[in-house]
Amino acid sequence: MASRKNAFYAQSGGVTAVINASACGVIETARKHRDRIGKVYAGRNGIIGALTEDLIDTGKESAQNIAALRHTPGGAFGSCRYRLKGLEDNRAQYQRLIDVFRAHDIGYFFYNGGGDSADTCLKVSQLSAKLGYPIQAIHVPKTVDNDLPVTDCCPGFGSVAKYVAVSIKEAALDVASMAKTSTKVFVMEVMGRHAGWIAAAAGLAQAQKGDAPHIILFPEIVFHQPVFLNKVKASVDRCGYCVIVVSEGVRDANGGFLAEAGTRDAFGHAQLGGVAPFIANMVKENLKYKYHWAVADYLQRSARHIASKLDVVQSYAVGKAAVELALKGHNAVMPTIVRKSDKPYQWTIGVARLADVANREKPLPRDFITTDGFGITAKARRYLAPLIQGEDYPPYKNGMPQYVVLKNAAVPKKLNTGFKI
Amino acid sequence: MASRKNAFYAQSGGVTAVINASACGVIETARKHRDRIGKVYAGRNGIIGALTEDLIDTGKESAQNIAALRHTPGGAFGSCRYRLKGLEDNRAQYQRLIDVFRAHDIGYFFYNGGGDSADTCLKVSQLSAKLGYPIQAIHVPKTVDNDLPVTDCCPGFGSVAKYVAVSIKEAALDVASMAKTSTKVFVMEVMGRHAGWIAAAAGLAQAQKGDAPHIILFPEIVFHQPVFLNKVKASVDRCGYCVIVVSEGVRDANGGFLAEAGTRDAFGHAQLGGVAPFIANMVKENLKYKYHWAVADYLQRSARHIASKLDVVQSYAVGKAAVELALKGHNAVMPTIVRKSDKPYQWTIGVARLADVANREKPLPRDFITTDGFGITAKARRYLAPLIQGEDYPPYKNGMPQYVVLKNAAVPKKLNTGFKI
Repeated sequence: MASRKNAFYAQSGGVTAVINASACGVIETARKHRDRIGKVYAGRNGIIGALTEDLIDTGKESAQNIAALRHTPGGAFGSCRYRLKGLEDNRAQYQRLIDVFRAHDIGYFFYNGGGDSADTCLKVSQLSAKLGYPIQAIHVPKTVDNDLPVTDCCPGFGSVAKYVAVSIKEAALDVASMAKTSTKVFVMEVMGRHAGWIAAAAGLAQAQKGDAPHIILFPEIVFHQPVFLNKVKASVDRCGYCVIVVSEGVRDANGGFLAEAGTRDAFGHAQLGGVAPFIANMVKENLKYKYHWAVADYLQRSARHIASKLDVVQSYAVGKAAVELALKGHNAVMPTIVRKSDKPYQWTIGVARLADVANREKPLPRDFITTDGFGITAKARRYLAPLIQGEDYPPYKNGMPQYVVLKNAAVPKKLNTGFKI
Repeated sequence: MASRKNAFYAQSGGVTAVINASACGVIETARKHRDRIGKVYAGRNGIIGALTEDLIDTGKESAQNIAALRHTPGGAFGSCRYRLKGLEDNRAQYQRLIDVFRAHDIGYFFYNGGGDSADTCLKVSQLSAKLGYPIQAIHVPKTVDNDLPVTDCCPGFGSVAKYVAVSIKEAALDVASMAKTSTKVFVMEVMGRHAGWIAAAAGLAQAQKGDAPHIILFPEIVFHQPVFLNKVKASVDRCGYCVIVVSEGVRDANGGFLAEAGTRDAFGHAQLGGVAPFIANMVKENLKYKYHWAVADYLQRSARHIASKLDVVQSYAVGKAAVELALKGHNAVMPTIVRKSDKPYQWTIGVARLADVANREKPLPRDFITTDGFGITAKARRYLAPLIQGEDYPPYKNGMPQYVVLKNAAVPKKLNTGFKI
């Protein structure tokens, strides 16, 4: 029993439709190794829960409720946007973590997040070497942005990709019906402030050339209004309507976000809307077409009802693998998705050093975008198509999905000191 | 064979996730009565197809493709926003319809739409009596707005209701996760310019008191900013966040749409965005909470992937019933949904006279809205809950729903005259 330690698990950054599937993988796997892992404590609201000694005892949750995390969106323990400073800049913060971890006999640290979170996890992994507190820190990858390096894809991305592709396919059928006498242009705004991975996924709605979406606007491609408007007109002339997907991160030639480009309301406030209404209005002003627009926002990343089955399976798998890596003695690593082939799609779990992951973004390759900048290439399609495979419906009751809300019982505090975050 | 006539079917107004299920019901039922109904011709883009003699021969479609209409959103034959004038105002229009109907031996007219379309259908039903052309006109109800009178509910509404309830439940889990350090207020805009039926459906996401959505803004309730802001603050104080559903039709004390209330961009144009960003910004300006907002727009009414099974069944049933009513000799009627009990929910098909349906809107009853104006009552819940029951997933291939695109082969024209619409 000497080697038995408790584990700390926390969710970090923007949550996804499947981050709880990773939590499920961590907790269910830990429960199978009670000889090595005692309690699994979750941080309430991420790392803030560790700093404030606000821990959740996941041992109080039934096996059934933990299993239900697999089909429940959002972050079951609460997440946070909070980045640890460097060890040199805020030593007290790290000392506090050690105090809390020591008080609760925590030897394993599982951190479920994206690039910023990998950096936090890397810093925690150095507590052993730098401050003498023995801990193994394993990062569990998660981000709808799909921009973590080393791993082939990021858990969370496949589900938002599927939501976006399905939604634009459906909306396009609607627009096609209405185009004769009404709406001719439809604009849907999707997430991805820095990279066009999500926008690219919309291209999967195209079953054949000429299908919607007719135009995708990527953050990677500078927006030129005349070229764009010509493309819209050509689409309407050809098939009667035009379906456009625009990334929130699209920029103009000066590098400014299009959504912030100069429009002000009557009080001088920056424009309230997103880039979708901006683009839709531009089309209306110049081409006179009737338009509709949508901004999916959180709907896209919480849409567990249309999650990718592969994404759910991989999210669970990285949670499970994180625990197994810890049990094998690893520190400062992250399980990855390794693609072995595109078609048939085959994958396995690999491992990356956190030093190779933290603070690096994987951009959308230029050769995933067509030469004209408005669509995706066959190469992009080969990469993206497997990630939306399979459906994994949550259970329903009375017409509504049965998502679990955990008890989230607090672990009694052992330190009698507060900590200001 | 003397009584054998061809049928005309057309889709009208805004389309839905399930209007094609009604088309499926009409065509499959007609195909079972070939002794009485010869061809089923669909109007390309609704009634415009009749006026321009642009007919689609649905007989060219395989049984498999017609069956696939049941799970395909949008309007498979094209819809239109086009209202026939009164007989006195545009006699040429009606004479043209008669010419086209006579040329193609059409004796049955099935029109699939909402209130305006019921008016068109009623006018066509009068061709026999007023202009001596024998035709039976049957209206097939459809509208996401749920505002047709007589019928208990409108095919199309249940699916948008389910989409809205599921989406806000999922987004609320996301917001709850982020509220500690990030987004505290989430606003989702839904359709319903004249009535709050769709907004009310969002209330079904509440499993128990205090659950999201915390605030619903109805077109029926005059918006008062101070009362609203107090309610937002109370919600954030109590549970850490606030989830708001706002109908596009919300109005201020002067009767103006909130979304159009005074904001202009730098060029003096009316504000680009919808009411969701307007509300979100109001919260930010006054209460300083970080916000996110979404506008589902067409996504909500085309989301066949999360359609209500009951809605699909009822949509098919009204299509089938329309043909059966025609075969029984009816004219100027509409099949209705008759509710026999709430719990267990039981229903049957009834019949309404079009004169009782056309140009009348069924408002959301005041006693469906709580006294404070921000939520739904138990009575509303009893009415709404059955309508989202059951899931009816489309088939998927390679991760995408397999929606059918018909051949839509044109019927050779028999008239050598054009008609300007």
